[in-house]
Amino acid sequence: MNKVVKINKDDMDVTVQPGITYDELNEALKDTGLFFPMDPGPGACIGGMVGTSCSGTHAVRYGTMKENVLNLKVVLPDGTLVKTANRAKKSSAGYDLTHLFVGSEGTLGIVSEITLRLKIRPQKTAVSVTTFPSNHHAAQTVIETMKSGVQIGRAELLDEVMIKAVNQNSDLELKEAPTLFFEFSGTDKQVDEQIAIVKDIVNNNKGQGFKFAVDVDERERLWTARKIALWSAPILKPESDVWITDVCVPISKLADCIQETKDDLDKSFLLAPMVSHAGDGNFHLFILFNSKDKKESDEAKRINTRLVERAIKMEGTCTGEHGVGVGKRAYLEKELGPGAIKLMRTIKKAVDPHNLFNPGKIIPDEQGHNKEADKEVEKESQSKPK
Amino acid sequence: MNKVVKINKDDMDVTVQPGITYDELNEALKDTGLFFPMDPGPGACIGGMVGTSCSGTHAVRYGTMKENVLNLKVVLPDGTLVKTANRAKKSSAGYDLTHLFVGSEGTLGIVSEITLRLKIRPQKTAVSVTTFPSNHHAAQTVIETMKSGVQIGRAELLDEVMIKAVNQNSDLELKEAPTLFFEFSGTDKQVDEQIAIVKDIVNNNKGQGFKFAVDVDERERLWTARKIALWSAPILKPESDVWITDVCVPISKLADCIQETKDDLDKSFLLAPMVSHAGDGNFHLFILFNSKDKKESDEAKRINTRLVERAIKMEGTCTGEHGVGVGKRAYLEKELGPGAIKLMRTIKKAVDPHNLFNPGKIIPDEQGHNKEADKEVEKESQSKPK
Repeated sequence: MNKVVKINKDDMDVTVQPGITYDELNEALKDTGLFFPMDPGPGACIGGMVGTSCSGTHAVRYGTMKENVLNLKVVLPDGTLVKTANRAKKSSAGYDLTHLFVGSEGTLGIVSEITLRLKIRPQKTAVSVTTFPSNHHAAQTVIETMKSGVQIGRAELLDEVMIKAVNQNSDLELKEAPTLFFEFSGTDKQVDEQIAIVKDIVNNNKGQGFKFAVDVDERERLWTARKIALWSAPILKPESDVWITDVCVPISKLADCIQETKDDLDKSFLLAPMVSHAGDGNFHLFILFNSKDKKESDEAKRINTRLVERAIKMEGTCTGEHGVGVGKRAYLEKELGPGAIKLMRTIKKAVDPHNLFNPGKIIPDEQGHNKEADKEVEKESQSKPK
Repeated sequence: MNKVVKINKDDMDVTVQPGITYDELNEALKDTGLFFPMDPGPGACIGGMVGTSCSGTHAVRYGTMKENVLNLKVVLPDGTLVKTANRAKKSSAGYDLTHLFVGSEGTLGIVSEITLRLKIRPQKTAVSVTTFPSNHHAAQTVIETMKSGVQIGRAELLDEVMIKAVNQNSDLELKEAPTLFFEFSGTDKQVDEQIAIVKDIVNNNKGQGFKFAVDVDERERLWTARKIALWSAPILKPESDVWITDVCVPISKLADCIQETKDDLDKSFLLAPMVSHAGDGNFHLFILFNSKDKKESDEAKRINTRLVERAIKMEGTCTGEHGVGVGKRAYLEKELGPGAIKLMRTIKKAVDPHNLFNPGKIIPDEQGHNKEADKEVEKESQSKPK
């Protein structure tokens, strides 16, 4: 189940089986001038990416899985085969069944085939790196960039703790300060224009040492820190477990949400390096803790709970791209209210009345869900990241 | 129920009540530098636009309602209040309830509040107009433009019959040939670059008399024909009824679908001017007929059926932006297969078990739906366009 079924180059779409990874897909597309822009983390399969409605660094430019799945073939719990839509770019033909399954985490059906929208590989790509006196300054730079209308390709923020981890895991010798990575893409003229506008915004927000690169080797060198962040985080606490969590807030709240989170972490005895898909208002903490130590486990849980409650208070979400699973079930009602949970439950019961598909995920139990979910969170948090 | 509830300028979103029209909304936004890009036809309310998942001329650049509704407040048939999502730009928090309602034509809930994504008004806008030796040449020009990666603002095609109607309804004295209207937008440099690339593609496809304008008055003058097309169509058959229908196909099939439709219309004794949102593979026919004349009614129905079947055969949809209502119910199963219809029925029954909300729309009846739908189509087609 990992084949490319059909590339429709002229329509800029591709049909694949769910087991193919996005890297394998892009390898298959390499001579077409097209690519699939989602990049949630290495090794992710398209089927899983449908399940969690994932996104990644490119979402600021190209959207998430929600915007990039054209149709699905799905098998329902009762064996019914469903084709959710055709291949037209847009359709008003009935209920939007495609979006019913994107992000449903395997609880409503098994996806057997996926048609994805593809994008044209940009003529030119450039990246820039800048450090800032605070994470608030860096986040503010991204907010102003988004408001300027510049169509950036990526906007990634690493806090000073994450940069420290990167330094320890490489010979990069970066300044240990909040660091912003931009990618620009388009035609020659567009890229030049984007860099000029963003450079001004960076300077106005006390950015220091603005470096940019167009050459592919130099670009990759500048981007290295962002690329290795995921694996570098645990180096700050060897043998630790890592609790990876994510929230997403309206972009106007991003600088405040990050700052309050950093202030909260400053008071904690645990370390939690941060990386943010800042252009979307989305950020991740990598909470480093020893799951066998009750004090550390409890503190990790408190950090996560405060993070989620902070995001929800700011009209944000308990998960921007990771999904709910069991770990975030307890927060769903706080975020969306009882009506939304009731409706999700109605849909689940109608489509899967015998609760066969991925039971216990997403939707809180009807009774005492918090207690139950809390137990499961503890269990889940003890797994190491792959 | 027609108020702007809150403009969040920094987050580029706005919360409105469903009764506001998109024109009124854009009026309220005029000093913000932002706008809401959907433009389905004059007078449309945001609530109705949610119901049909509409789009219009700007969809090629900004997407449809599916991509531009951030969240909804909805009242379900049992009185449950549902908030579908928060205001974060992206979320993986549970089932995508927003998309469950966008395009559901009022059959699942009553929408009481809508939060929409807004776009930055482009610095510069230009339009171009060109005539072509055939509709196939014009559609091919759009296909190649899309593949070039140029981010056009609009790409609209009027056939020679529609241009004739426009001429009769104005003093424009246009050449009665297939005519393509492009809009370009962005920064000065971007617009210049777009025009240069598109002009080459136009010339390679035998486009004639490429005119373009940046000045606002001249722009509006060039765009007039597109603007008045909707009201001009009936002039070709005074006192006629108008059956407005739409289909959408993968863009690679657009030129062929339009050509086959034109060939079909050439053999008919009825006139049906065409306008296409060509960048999306979407086009409309305005079938002019006398609903009291059985021969004409039957012929209009046959034209519509053949159009829809042609689009479905080309992996397209029976409706790109108008919705299903009763008129397209009969084609839904042919387009999506029995599994999708069964799933839509399952959802409708679960959310609205007493069939209270807009009964009879979208989903074919379980028995003999074609016969029933056909009767209703006939009834509906006798109403004149507003």
